[in-house]
Amino acid sequence: MEKTLKELADYLGGEVIGDENIKIKGVMTIDEAREGYITFVSNIKYIKKIEETSASAILVSPGITTKGKNLLVTKNPYLAFAKVVDLMMSPEKVYPGSLDNSARVSDSAEIGANVTAYPFVFIGENVKVADNVVLYPGVYVGDNCQIGKDTVIHPNTVLHRGTTIGERVVVHSNSVIGCSGYGYAPDGKKYYKIPQVGVTVIEDDVDIGANTTINRGVLGETRIKRGTKIDSEVMIAHNVEIGEDTLITSQVGIAGSVEIGNNVILAGGAGVAGHIKVGDNVQVGGWSGVIKDLPPGGTYLGTPAIEIERMRKCFIIIQKLPEMKNTIKDLQKKIEQLEKRLGSD
Amino acid sequence: MEKTLKELADYLGGEVIGDENIKIKGVMTIDEAREGYITFVSNIKYIKKIEETSASAILVSPGITTKGKNLLVTKNPYLAFAKVVDLMMSPEKVYPGSLDNSARVSDSAEIGANVTAYPFVFIGENVKVADNVVLYPGVYVGDNCQIGKDTVIHPNTVLHRGTTIGERVVVHSNSVIGCSGYGYAPDGKKYYKIPQVGVTVIEDDVDIGANTTINRGVLGETRIKRGTKIDSEVMIAHNVEIGEDTLITSQVGIAGSVEIGNNVILAGGAGVAGHIKVGDNVQVGGWSGVIKDLPPGGTYLGTPAIEIERMRKCFIIIQKLPEMKNTIKDLQKKIEQLEKRLGSD
Amino acid sequence: MEKTLKELADYLGGEVIGDENIKIKGVMTIDEAREGYITFVSNIKYIKKIEETSASAILVSPGITTKGKNLLVTKNPYLAFAKVVDLMMSPEKVYPGSLDNSARVSDSAEIGANVTAYPFVFIGENVKVADNVVLYPGVYVGDNCQIGKDTVIHPNTVLHRGTTIGERVVVHSNSVIGCSGYGYAPDGKKYYKIPQVGVTVIEDDVDIGANTTINRGVLGETRIKRGTKIDSEVMIAHNVEIGEDTLITSQVGIAGSVEIGNNVILAGGAGVAGHIKVGDNVQVGGWSGVIKDLPPGGTYLGTPAIEIERMRKCFIIIQKLPEMKNTIKDLQKKIEQLEKRLGSD
Repeated sequence: MEKTLKELADYLGGEVIGDENIKIKGVMTIDEAREGYITFVSNIKYIKKIEETSASAILVSPGITTKGKNLLVTKNPYLAFAKVVDLMMSPEKVYPGSLDNSARVSDSAEIGANVTAYPFVFIGENVKVADNVVLYPGVYVGDNCQIGKDTVIHPNTVLHRGTTIGERVVVHSNSVIGCSGYGYAPDGKKYYKIPQVGVTVIEDDVDIGANTTINRGVLGETRIKRGTKIDSEVMIAHNVEIGEDTLITSQVGIAGSVEIGNNVILAGGAGVAGHIKVGDNVQVGGWSGVIKDLPPGGTYLGTPAIEIERMRKCFIIIQKLPEMKNTIKDLQKKIEQLEKRLGSD
Repeated sequence: MEKTLKELADYLGGEVIGDENIKIKGVMTIDEAREGYITFVSNIKYIKKIEETSASAILVSPGITTKGKNLLVTKNPYLAFAKVVDLMMSPEKVYPGSLDNSARVSDSAEIGANVTAYPFVFIGENVKVADNVVLYPGVYVGDNCQIGKDTVIHPNTVLHRGTTIGERVVVHSNSVIGCSGYGYAPDGKKYYKIPQVGVTVIEDDVDIGANTTINRGVLGETRIKRGTKIDSEVMIAHNVEIGEDTLITSQVGIAGSVEIGNNVILAGGAGVAGHIKVGDNVQVGGWSGVIKDLPPGGTYLGTPAIEIERMRKCFIIIQKLPEMKNTIKDLQKKIEQLEKRLGSD
Repeated sequence: MEKTLKELADYLGGEVIGDENIKIKGVMTIDEAREGYITFVSNIKYIKKIEETSASAILVSPGITTKGKNLLVTKNPYLAFAKVVDLMMSPEKVYPGSLDNSARVSDSAEIGANVTAYPFVFIGENVKVADNVVLYPGVYVGDNCQIGKDTVIHPNTVLHRGTTIGERVVVHSNSVIGCSGYGYAPDGKKYYKIPQVGVTVIEDDVDIGANTTINRGVLGETRIKRGTKIDSEVMIAHNVEIGEDTLITSQVGIAGSVEIGNNVILAGGAGVAGHIKVGDNVQVGGWSGVIKDLPPGGTYLGTPAIEIERMRKCFIIIQKLPEMKNTIKDLQKKIEQLEKRLGSD
């Protein structure tokens, strides 16, 4: 599929600077792009690459100008990039829209229209699967689960009993949603398992990465709210509630009964201790450990996590601690000399 | 199933303060509980919620009194809570007790009575599966594995060849037990894989979370002892030995040949470097990195992990390093002034 | 299979000190070894164990001598150990060499000679599988994947569409290769998924551990080069490039567009932030967080990671911060006293 730069500008609601009739075959990165392709600059530090690229056009934000390059200007070139890739390079996968004869579907399950169940899918008792859902090979759907329309569950992912999944959700491969959480009461000699009789609710438009684990509630529920995006190898314990449009990147760990607000960002490898509340719009840096409630809107870093600017200063000083130690030794010597010179009282 | 408060007290060996004839329908959290339900206070800081809850009764520890509330007093209300949930809210799952015709079971496998193998289970050569074992869909049991009675293996979990699993063990979904570990000998140019010919032994009453990995021994074995509880996304390398009734919470990583004692607690995200010994009853805080042997009984925190009270003080001082740096600068100035006032010798 | 010590020396190109005619039945660790077995000392700190072991012979490096022990001297006893285990204790597993009738193989797939597909394997459209490949139960191979000869994919691992795997690669259980990565463009209200239309390339002789995740490129590719060994529960994001013969140990996380050189070692739990370049021969210690480009050849530790010797000094001083704080307080008092004694100007 080829498009003119003009056609792409119309599609994106953007403006062309340069030749609006050139033909675009697809999208490439700025380093690799060749004639016939459009590229983009998402990060201001790569702007000088615009001069060097062989791309036929570049998606840029307003205010950027260059000599002799065709530019497609939009307010959000990264979003524009995503939309052009979707338009030109992501042909919709065609699914069978039927249940493979090797899929094992319980008689009590209610299956909507145009549902695809690939080979080796297992669907338990009283499951409800809405229209257009795709279940890839090896997916396990436990008793009493519900899956909303247009949702895709990738291979070998496990949905435990009683899990509710919304519409347009994507769960990547080998993830485990709604499994029994980790809770034991010591009885004096050994550990007695706390039964985990709650459920898990994944709301609409949530994405969940590969090899991620989400426990169900002990009582009540674990809930991931609308539009939140969870990366791979994330661990979310029982009775956690995560707000809307929040980003949880890879290898994050969230302990039991944590509440996380809307539009939060937890960077890779960060952790949140049990029963903590993280307010709306909070951002937590990579590999940070949150052990106190965080009010809305701040940015935090470190273990334990504190306000990011302070922590950055602390990191710099930590790296200079050997010099600080020497400085203190020097001061000790100087004071001793001063004391000596003054003599005893 | 309804019970009177008196019946629950008899079941738990506890004592009623208030109306012992009220009917209890189930258990709810203290925030959500309604009339007809019992709730519990596990943490002393929530005690004021007793006054506010709508629950018909509250599980409490001795010494707690309130006006007009029905209390069920036991020494360990958290354990009592677990037992009431088990009694009233965890109807035993009924399994088929047979091998599904799509399960692939080798002719040389010995299968006990009342064993359930769901669809798409694979059982290799010379495997022994004891009575009442449940193998959920997609479970892989490699050659020469043994699984003790009443054990449950959740969907898509993989038991590699030669793994021995005890009785009443639970392994959650998508975990991998007994896979070949990570060991390479550099031969000067590239890496030569150390063959991993040992085995893995999981003793009785062990729980293993979802997406957890346990390597087999290089030679000899990796062993998890009786009653130990392992959470999700944990990584345990080759030739590790973990004692009895130890708690390993989520995302912990334990390197090769580590020995961990009995009744140890490793909190979420902690790590232990190779060949380290961690003594009985040791507790290690979240996101800590253990790089030295830890004698029995202590509590440790930080990376590298040290005694917890010292590390907590260090964390506080770290956060005040910018002020410390300024204090030192002030001292330098003052000393310079003092030196100036005293003049040169 | 028994071998004389002489036969093993010939096989390894080593030299016997002692009785070259003794019979060796196998390899055991130095603590457990009994008569009839050979053992090894890989770490200089265990050298005194040579005197105590009951092994009939010990693999050692040149220069080690003992009284009355049979030694097999080679330049690299750890490599020699690996080769003896391979020779004596790793009987080659015999695979069916055919496609199980429950495996689902698309008509458009090209399958080489002697390929094993165990039950419940799924092979998509236009897949190419070379000779002698082994696909364990539950493996999913997406459309347009290619798998090179002699490669082994362990149970329930998922290869997403368009993934290319080299020759003699081993991918352990429940891993996910080539899944869609984590990228979203905020559109002002919510997140728009960046389509991930790239691929993943795993070159020859790469090993990948269990429960590991490797994302495909956004555009372009994610590439793991020849001979690199990746451990379990590792997360590698989109468009990462990892060089040759590099070691990535367990629970490491590598963010998007990172470039890692040849012969690098990242120890367990380390992380690398997005767009970072790590030079050849760099070593990064456990639980370290890399946030800056690292030039070739250095060794780094800590979060943020800095040169290891400096970081080790910093760790020691951190643990003594309470004393440092007291020292500074003392200095403050002494200076106040000095100021008092000197009086006001």
